[in-house]
Amino acid sequence: MTVDLPRTAVIMAGGVGERFWPLSRQRFPKQLLPLAGGRSLLQESHDRIAPLVPEGHVHVLTTADLADVVAEHAPFIPRENILVEPMRRNTAACLALASAILEKRHGPNVMAVTTADHIIGDVAGFRAVFERALTLAASHEQILVFGVRPTRPETGYGYIELGSVVDEHPAIPCHAVRGFREKPDLQTAERYLGAGNFLWNSGMFVWRSDVLHAAFAEHAEPYAWRGWERAALGSPDATVSQVSPTLARVFENLPNLSIDYAVMEKTSNIWGLPASFDWIDIGGWEALRALLDVDEAGNARQGDTVLVDTRESTLHSTGPLIATCGIENLVVVATPDAVLVCPRDRLEEVKRVVAALKTENQESHL
Amino acid sequence: MTVDLPRTAVIMAGGVGERFWPLSRQRFPKQLLPLAGGRSLLQESHDRIAPLVPEGHVHVLTTADLADVVAEHAPFIPRENILVEPMRRNTAACLALASAILEKRHGPNVMAVTTADHIIGDVAGFRAVFERALTLAASHEQILVFGVRPTRPETGYGYIELGSVVDEHPAIPCHAVRGFREKPDLQTAERYLGAGNFLWNSGMFVWRSDVLHAAFAEHAEPYAWRGWERAALGSPDATVSQVSPTLARVFENLPNLSIDYAVMEKTSNIWGLPASFDWIDIGGWEALRALLDVDEAGNARQGDTVLVDTRESTLHSTGPLIATCGIENLVVVATPDAVLVCPRDRLEEVKRVVAALKTENQESHL
Repeated sequence: MTVDLPRTAVIMAGGVGERFWPLSRQRFPKQLLPLAGGRSLLQESHDRIAPLVPEGHVHVLTTADLADVVAEHAPFIPRENILVEPMRRNTAACLALASAILEKRHGPNVMAVTTADHIIGDVAGFRAVFERALTLAASHEQILVFGVRPTRPETGYGYIELGSVVDEHPAIPCHAVRGFREKPDLQTAERYLGAGNFLWNSGMFVWRSDVLHAAFAEHAEPYAWRGWERAALGSPDATVSQVSPTLARVFENLPNLSIDYAVMEKTSNIWGLPASFDWIDIGGWEALRALLDVDEAGNARQGDTVLVDTRESTLHSTGPLIATCGIENLVVVATPDAVLVCPRDRLEEVKRVVAALKTENQESHL
Repeated sequence: MTVDLPRTAVIMAGGVGERFWPLSRQRFPKQLLPLAGGRSLLQESHDRIAPLVPEGHVHVLTTADLADVVAEHAPFIPRENILVEPMRRNTAACLALASAILEKRHGPNVMAVTTADHIIGDVAGFRAVFERALTLAASHEQILVFGVRPTRPETGYGYIELGSVVDEHPAIPCHAVRGFREKPDLQTAERYLGAGNFLWNSGMFVWRSDVLHAAFAEHAEPYAWRGWERAALGSPDATVSQVSPTLARVFENLPNLSIDYAVMEKTSNIWGLPASFDWIDIGGWEALRALLDVDEAGNARQGDTVLVDTRESTLHSTGPLIATCGIENLVVVATPDAVLVCPRDRLEEVKRVVAALKTENQESHL
């Protein structure tokens, strides 16, 4: 296998990000929010990876109901590069589909997979690590994963346990991967932090298309697309207008598994790169505090606010003034048409609010 | 003194009602809010008292900065009947002024004083009690006050202690007043509730103009207006355009006392009528709960709301949807331009929010 394979990039942007309601909406998902400043998460993701691949080789993977709104808000991505999952089917299925489409368009290729819900300040560091991964993947039968050095005993992330160095490098040594670890309890997380070779699983990958296919064939046979791609991908591209009924039927029958579970945790052809860049997984409102200045009272605020005796709270408005008096550990988010009030330790349940809106026919606020 | 004196009515509406922020504003005070339904508190007050006095004899007493907005929202009140206090100077001064103006316009009269921050459902009951007070006041040298039968050991109101019956009546016996009692502690309030002759001080009065003047002359001489009215009331009316510098100067030099403190607690010429009608003193957000349906989870809501695991809270919106998740004992008020979040037991401090808006130059939200 030659090292001159074309490079491709895929940004996974299929979720709505319900835990960011009321800022995220069904028709304005999280990845379009300018959470890190003036530009959307999707644009930031695009601009980070674009210089590493040829012009026009950055793709976005999203769902049919989001494709139009993504296209509208991301004119920097050619419309045919917005790849559409026929339905939400988890990461193994959607990455198998993306790989099938990209192989059809570009032939065998080296593919970088990132997501649109990370915030990374050190763009140069990001590019250095990805450049190294793209180079390694082109010439090795290995899937490359990225581990972020933990700065705290985080229980909300999965971990990658790195083994010995398999490819020396002055700045970015490449390691064997001993294994993937599920989200740990606090005691385990503290042990991981102390051990030094347990890194946060960033959920980003680099692989050669034939290596991914071989891994599917060995560990997750239904995704090995050569068995179904001819029937499914009747048209040359699977953009929003071209999801064929055949593809939808095939896709629906794929198992609903994450790529980690279907492949990464099973294959031994996997190497890990320690990523030194800062990395914030923007899962919900609590993660936002990492982006905002937190004042001496523990409050993080954005937009118009007036606080009286308020502590350890997050106040975010894109519309009305938020005024608080005598509150603690609360999140208050205001938009012109909806206000959320929720304790910081109950933020996982914001999804219940979104579900309640559906039940109570408040669709206009979804 | 004849019983054929003309009747007049004065509705006190001088306050902004800061504890109702963000619904009340400097330019849209509490008395203009439709808290009891479709009509404003001021209109409700007007319609309650109007049938008891001649056409055109209902007046509103307010401050210069509110006069225009009151006039605009209360076209049912003739502009010349909007009486303007040159500055906020408490109830003794403003009622002395009102009495001086009304005597100048109508000669000796019997005056009913109500306020614009009460909600009274039993209008017929209200009118029966006031009709009786106006009749008694016309022919006796007595100030009439109204005590509301307590339904709970309320510590937020002052009380009137009634003595023996001085004027029999099948439905509304008239009592001597033994005294006025300040807001009690809980134990005292429970004793008052049990005793039966301690009633909530409603803050409404009926008096003959000469009786009030005599009481001022005896107990609160600076307010006895005959000493200053000629100089102060150079123009026949004191509407907003006619507050003379002379009047402002005189008014400013009056003591800043309540009518209760200046007169009621000192004079012995005072009778009390038990008022059987329901009566809610709309002081702030907590009082609003008495007007709204409180559901089995203890939540009172008005406007667009979605609640998940929310208890004992008050949710009021005139604008954005309010969504709450996992909260308890909170008040959330949303308007199109401002949102308030405050625990129910800290509502007295909403004034601090208003003060902070002034300090932080957020004048547009005042």
